Formats: sequence, structure tokens, C-alpha cells
Amino acid sequence: MTTFDLDPRLAADSELLALIDDIEVRAMRRVPWPWLLLAPRVAGASELFDLDEAQRAALWQLTLELSEGLKRATAADKINVGALGNVVAQLHVHIIARHRTDPAWPAPVWGRSEVPLDEAADAARRDTLCALVDQISRSIPGRASEASQP
Amino acid sequence: MTTFDLDPRLAADSELLALIDDIEVRAMRRVPWPWLLLAPRVAGASELFDLDEAQRAALWQLTLELSEGLKRATAADKINVGALGNVVAQLHVHIIARHRTDPAWPAPVWGRSEVPLDEAADAARRDTLCALVDQISRSIPGRASEASQP
Repeated sequence: MTTFDLDPRLAADSELLALIDDIEVRAMRRVPWPWLLLAPRVAGASELFDLDEAQRAALWQLTLELSEGLKRATAADKINVGALGNVVAQLHVHIIARHRTDPAWPAPVWGRSEVPLDEAADAARRDTLCALVDQISRSIPGRASEASQP
Repeated sequence: MTTFDLDPRLAADSELLALIDDIEVRAMRRVPWPWLLLAPRVAGASELFDLDEAQRAALWQLTLELSEGLKRATAADKINVGALGNVVAQLHVHIIARHRTDPAWPAPVWGRSEVPLDEAADAARRDTLCALVDQISRSIPGRASEASQP
């Protein structure tokens, strides 16, 4: 059995906030949007359909919960959910809060590294994401969850 | 109760192939990628979490089936799945087959209207999508399905 290792580009671009149902819940670093990234710890998975039934259900459930929580926590105009993987094939799902006033609206955010970053706003976004993920990881008693890097 | 009307931009940009589990399965028109669009017939839905439990499960199941079928039917290198909705807020999910040789790889395809279209390849892509959707809509006995515009 192959062991799961997070792709080094995902590891560099994002920070682990929690492990819920064996899915890494990560915050993208240094981006001007509230942006979560989910990476199921399933070795070799690239497409959503590479997951088994239980893993599919867990990923879908968590995507919905975090999308709803993120919209509420950030007063977003729209949540963008995407599983692309053209650059990093390892399965990962993006959940991004979008606002009509954000620097890429209404275009997708991927590949927009030229957008400048406000450091104070970046720290505030991180705090919001941490609080949201902490709340959701505690909301389901008995759910496999860890708050820090294993 | 509000009735569902497909957003006119989605209607103009895509063609209805089938109705499965009350979800419109549509093919994007005149794009150089094999590209399906799913629109649940739920009035007022904008986010994935606006669906009820049964609608969520149906959309997820259909997304997985079509993603897997599309990858196989097109020998794609990667499937891109996305629910964005920044331009058209009405809930819709994109399922796009991507190839390393396609005209936008590895960038996302949204907003790439400048890419030229080969008419013969466009017709072939449409045939592939029709065959796939027909196969999947027939694969589940008793599943609510229609092959044409109601």
C-alpha cells in the first residue's frame, strides 16, 4: 500500500488547519481571497471518482459545510468550488470566497499571482479561516479530527 | 413556489442533452474542449449548499459518473470540475475534459473565448458528449430521465 504524501507544491502554497475525516483542510497562503483547499489523504488519487464511496461522501459533505460556513463567515457574494489539478494532479478541491469588490472578480482566481497583497488583510483572512475550520471540526462529535500537523 | 427557468446565458451557451434526476445535462456550444454543464432544476439555487439532501446527493452522483465517463470517452489527461457562478449566479457545475495538447492547458478554460474553433472537431466532440450522456442516462433503470427538451 502506497502512503499518502502531500504534493510539495500544495504543501508550499497552503497551511494545514485541520484534518477532518482524513481530509486535510488547508488555507492558501498569501492570496487576496479567503481560500480553503481540501486534500483527501488518499495515495494516488487524482480525480474525484478515484475515491471510494466513503471518501466521496466525506469530501462532498465537508465541501458543502465549509462552503456554507465560508460564505457566512466572509459575507461572500459567491463561493467558487473547483477540482482542477492541471498543474498539480494530486486530488485537491478549492473553496474560495468571492466578493464583487475582490481583485479578480468576476474572473476565476487561479493563476492570478500578480494581484498585490495587503499584509493586514491577509492576517485577518487567515484568522477567519482558522476560526471557521475550528468551529466545523468541533461541530460533529466523534468525527475524526485533529487540529494540528500530524 | 417559484418555477425554475434556466438562465438565458446558460441556455444560449449550451444545449440540453438529457434531464437526469431533475438535473439538466447540457453540452457547451462552440468551445474547443469537451465540456458538460449540469444545472439542477431548483428555482433560486445559487450555491451547492442551496440544494436539499436528495438534490445534493443526485448532483454529486451525476458529477462523478459523468466525470469518469468523460475521462474515458475522451482519453482526457484531467477532468476539471467547477461550480463558480460569478457571472451567472444560477447554480451550475462545469465538467471539462482537459488534454495536455488543448489550447488552454494547463490554465482553466473559463473566459477563453479567443481560442479558435475547428468545426469538424467541434461536431465530433458534440457526438462524443451525446453518446456518453445517452449511455449514462440509460444505465440506471428507473432513473428519472428524458432525452429531449421538455
